[in-house]
Amino acid sequence: MKILALDTSSQAASCALLEDERPIGTFYIDAKLTHSQTILPMVENMLSACQQKLSDVDLFAVSNGPGSFTGLRIGTAAVKGMAHALNKPCIGLSTLEGLAYNMIGHSGIVCAVMDARCNQVYTALFDLDDGMRRMTEDLAIPLEELHEILKKQEKNIILVGDGAVLCYNSIMEQDVCSVTLAPAHQRLQNAHSVGLAALYNHLDEAAAAKELQPSYLRLPQAQRELLKKQQK
Amino acid sequence: MKILALDTSSQAASCALLEDERPIGTFYIDAKLTHSQTILPMVENMLSACQQKLSDVDLFAVSNGPGSFTGLRIGTAAVKGMAHALNKPCIGLSTLEGLAYNMIGHSGIVCAVMDARCNQVYTALFDLDDGMRRMTEDLAIPLEELHEILKKQEKNIILVGDGAVLCYNSIMEQDVCSVTLAPAHQRLQNAHSVGLAALYNHLDEAAAAKELQPSYLRLPQAQRELLKKQQK
Repeated sequence: MKILALDTSSQAASCALLEDERPIGTFYIDAKLTHSQTILPMVENMLSACQQKLSDVDLFAVSNGPGSFTGLRIGTAAVKGMAHALNKPCIGLSTLEGLAYNMIGHSGIVCAVMDARCNQVYTALFDLDDGMRRMTEDLAIPLEELHEILKKQEKNIILVGDGAVLCYNSIMEQDVCSVTLAPAHQRLQNAHSVGLAALYNHLDEAAAAKELQPSYLRLPQAQRELLKKQQK
Repeated sequence: MKILALDTSSQAASCALLEDERPIGTFYIDAKLTHSQTILPMVENMLSACQQKLSDVDLFAVSNGPGSFTGLRIGTAAVKGMAHALNKPCIGLSTLEGLAYNMIGHSGIVCAVMDARCNQVYTALFDLDDGMRRMTEDLAIPLEELHEILKKQEKNIILVGDGAVLCYNSIMEQDVCSVTLAPAHQRLQNAHSVGLAALYNHLDEAAAAKELQPSYLRLPQAQRELLKKQQK
């Protein structure tokens, strides 16, 4: 099965074409450019370099949140467009789960952490020894609350994500518990891991393009401010 | 410092642009295509997607052997061409060392193994706990000789490379010693690791394009056969 996976949930943009778990092509750019301008040309260039056609793709996958609101909209919109045009199924999955798949093949617990600003994090824990079993929902919580969760774990914990260093440093400063920082080159979002997560864990959720939505976890700032005003 | 790294030592082709250790762009293709046709367009597409120019590159790096003879010639020729045209320095480094850098951030010993056919392997060992200290030269030896080397190690050993599974299976069958197989997505050559190896370990060897040569470790088959005939 050929899976085309996209990730535009952070500053970097990436796409990957997988034949089952084997990467046929991967393309990753972290150059502070607008995803709306880069991601589709990246897909086109990658497919062309592999001599593959978009119509060869059996399934589309995208990390649909949490993450940069604009980034998530661009990624899901791009996948919705391609899947709709070709009448192929697609899967939206948690950015945190995608991050966890960076650590596939390791043992212990992987804690995906994304910086949600203002000392808040997006986070979720997965058990690597038990087929990447999800241990928590995707959470938007204060960093201190994550400390409490991590303290209770009895296995080695690996931190991944753009909030991993923030979390690691605060844990070390406050001597909370023992954690490991994922190697730098495996710490951030990438489409290859999104493709693996789709393949191993979400094939039964493949749905029509119209079902795919971003999943922000927190409301966008504009909506939060509107709600605040309305409550006054 | 901007490093453009290439790897064409195996069936896959990849290029990476690093700003120090941070990847700005990576592009990887494993589609059984001819490297001579794919690698330079991949570099051009990657630079264009990052809005970077070839003239922005400060240093070129390439895995110059062991590996596919034709692949090595294409990779080194491409780097020689670019470095010569721009009068920039370049570094050729061991494909096995590049592979070892896939495991940077892990602990123990990394053993890079490439299948050299006929039960022979290209191999080298590196100590991950001691700044990726090289423990052996690049070797072309029978698989059984590698067993003997691995038996003597006292740390956890991680196998990487396209010969890792071959080596892992033979070790398990003969109950030689305890080894770990690198996760599938980190097992094969990629240009990003070549760039990291150049940055961390070879900057003092940066030289003019004319110095760069493939390093085959074994003579190409045609030359081996010629020597054999001459010896008769």
